[in-house]
Parts: sequence; C-alpha cells; structure tokens
Amino acid sequence: MLKNQESYVLLLTGLSGAGKTTIATALQKQLLQKGRSSVLLDGDEIRNIIQLHAFDEASRKAHNLRIAKMASLFEAQGNIVIISLIAPYADVRSQMRKLCNNFYEIYLNTSIETCMERDPKGLYKKALSGEINNFTGVSAPYEIPENPELSLDTAILSIDQCTDKVLSLVFYSYE
Amino acid sequence: MLKNQESYVLLLTGLSGAGKTTIATALQKQLLQKGRSSVLLDGDEIRNIIQLHAFDEASRKAHNLRIAKMASLFEAQGNIVIISLIAPYADVRSQMRKLCNNFYEIYLNTSIETCMERDPKGLYKKALSGEINNFTGVSAPYEIPENPELSLDTAILSIDQCTDKVLSLVFYSYE
Repeated sequence: MLKNQESYVLLLTGLSGAGKTTIATALQKQLLQKGRSSVLLDGDEIRNIIQLHAFDEASRKAHNLRIAKMASLFEAQGNIVIISLIAPYADVRSQMRKLCNNFYEIYLNTSIETCMERDPKGLYKKALSGEINNFTGVSAPYEIPENPELSLDTAILSIDQCTDKVLSLVFYSYE
Repeated sequence: MLKNQESYVLLLTGLSGAGKTTIATALQKQLLQKGRSSVLLDGDEIRNIIQLHAFDEASRKAHNLRIAKMASLFEAQGNIVIISLIAPYADVRSQMRKLCNNFYEIYLNTSIETCMERDPKGLYKKALSGEINNFTGVSAPYEIPENPELSLDTAILSIDQCTDKVLSLVFYSYE
C-alpha cells in the first residue's frame, strides 16, 4: 500500500522522444487513481515559465539543478515529485540525487533510432540539418546512466508496463 | 470532508511580516494531517532557486506571474497549491486569479505598525534607513485587496484560528 504522506522524487531521464512526458503523465494519472496527487516538473514547461531558453552546457546544467532544487523543496513538503527532463550529464544527475531525499533515477533507454523515427516535435530533423544546435544525441552528449534504479525501453514496453514497473519500485521500497 | 483529488490555489497576500509563511506552513501541516500533501510556492524561496532578485515594479510583476503560472500548472495536475507572496499589485493578483481554476485570495491584513514591530528579517529597518529600495509599505505600494475571499489579521487571530478559517472556506466550497 502507498501511504498517504510518503514523498519521493522520480527522475525520468532520456533522449528527446524517449517518452519521458508520456510516462510522467501516465504515472501522474495512476497515482491520482490511487488517491495521491503528485507534482510534475517538466523541463520544457519550467523553461517556458521562467523564460530561460539557452541550451549551452552551463545553461542546461543550471536548468537541471534549478529543477532539482524545486523538486527537493516540494519533496520536503510531503509531495511525490516526478521530473521529466533530458538531464544528459551524469555529474548533474548525481548532484540532483544529492539534493533530494528519496531519489529514483529512471532511465528511458529507448534507442536514438526510435527517438529519431518518432521525432514528435520535429527537433531531430532540425538538429540534423543544423537548424538547431546543442541538441542531445546529435550535437550534444547524453551520458548514459550507469546505475539507474530502473531502465525502461519504451520501444518494447507499453506505457502501462512502464508505469507498473515504476510503481512497483516505489511500492516495494515502502512495504 | 476534503476529497482526495480536489485541487485549488490559495494565495496568501500581505505585507512583509504579516505572517504569510507562518500561516502557509501551518496550513500545509494541517492538510498533511488530513492526508493531503500540498505544494507551497513561497515567493522568497522561488526567487532563490531561479536567482532573479530584482525588485522594481516590472520584475516583481513578472515574478508574481511566474509563480501563478507554476501554481496553475500544479493545480491542473491535481494538487492543492499555497502561494505565500506579497503580491502588492491588484492588477497582477487579478491576472493570477485568471490563470488558475479555483483561486482563493486570502489577505493578511495585519497593520504595517505590527509588521514593523515584528520585522522578522530586519527589512523594515533597512527600508526606513534607505539601505534597501522598493520595499512594500515603505518605498513601494501595497494595493489593498478589494474583494478577497478572506481577510485575516494575524495581530488578533492565532495561527490556529487563521488556518481554521482558511480550511473552512475550502471545505465549505466543496461540501
């Protein structure tokens, strides 16, 4: 059983198109069905709100740490926090983990070929043509998580299978 | 009864020292005791995270609207959101209300004399000596809410009395 006042942070990390927002939204819906609201910090949405749109390495790292600080704040207030964020740098993910109390790194290890085929926002096309720079997987690195709590390939697993695995992870930890 | 999946935004507005953070924290604790987590967006904390520290009129308005956009996002996700923020401009509070779905404006109408006596952060002293500028109530305006859902004078009411009044307001709306 999920107790009412447990709080933790779930980081969904992976390439653009890996399914982070889809899985995050599905998780949030399932948690609501279990009677728990959660806070979803989506990298793109927070960028839009705070109007910081630089994508160089330093700006991305700062963006990721800002989101981790928000997550830490809301976690300490008793919330379940879901972060959907490319979070391409291993050292930053490690710092994010340290900022939080109960932190789960969930790596959406969908191949770049699948992500490029999906290309939901047309961004890979623009990155490959050079129209946009610093694009993860094309012109900027994605450092693969070495010890994530969970890896999910959304090319193989259904959305329900993914959310079940995440929720099993969290429930098990609190049994 | 408070149902599990209802979401709304409570804005605690008032002068520095009026008791916004104190009441917000107490509210959050009481909601947790009722089995509901909530998201507290404290103006100072969010400024610290996003590192935007200008206090001129335009910067303050932008800051307040950013917080309202976050509140709206988290409310739409099914959360109870508490905002503790001076929010001195009536037109901005009105815009904040429009951004949210269920919005409650709670005015902490504690007198400036009481706030100056409390001066928990020593800011009135600095504002009166001219060490800091654009300080609400001293060198910047606070436009009194004309039709708040609730007014609370924290010089007269205890913390418990204040939180009871806020929770009655919310419970009543959902009975």
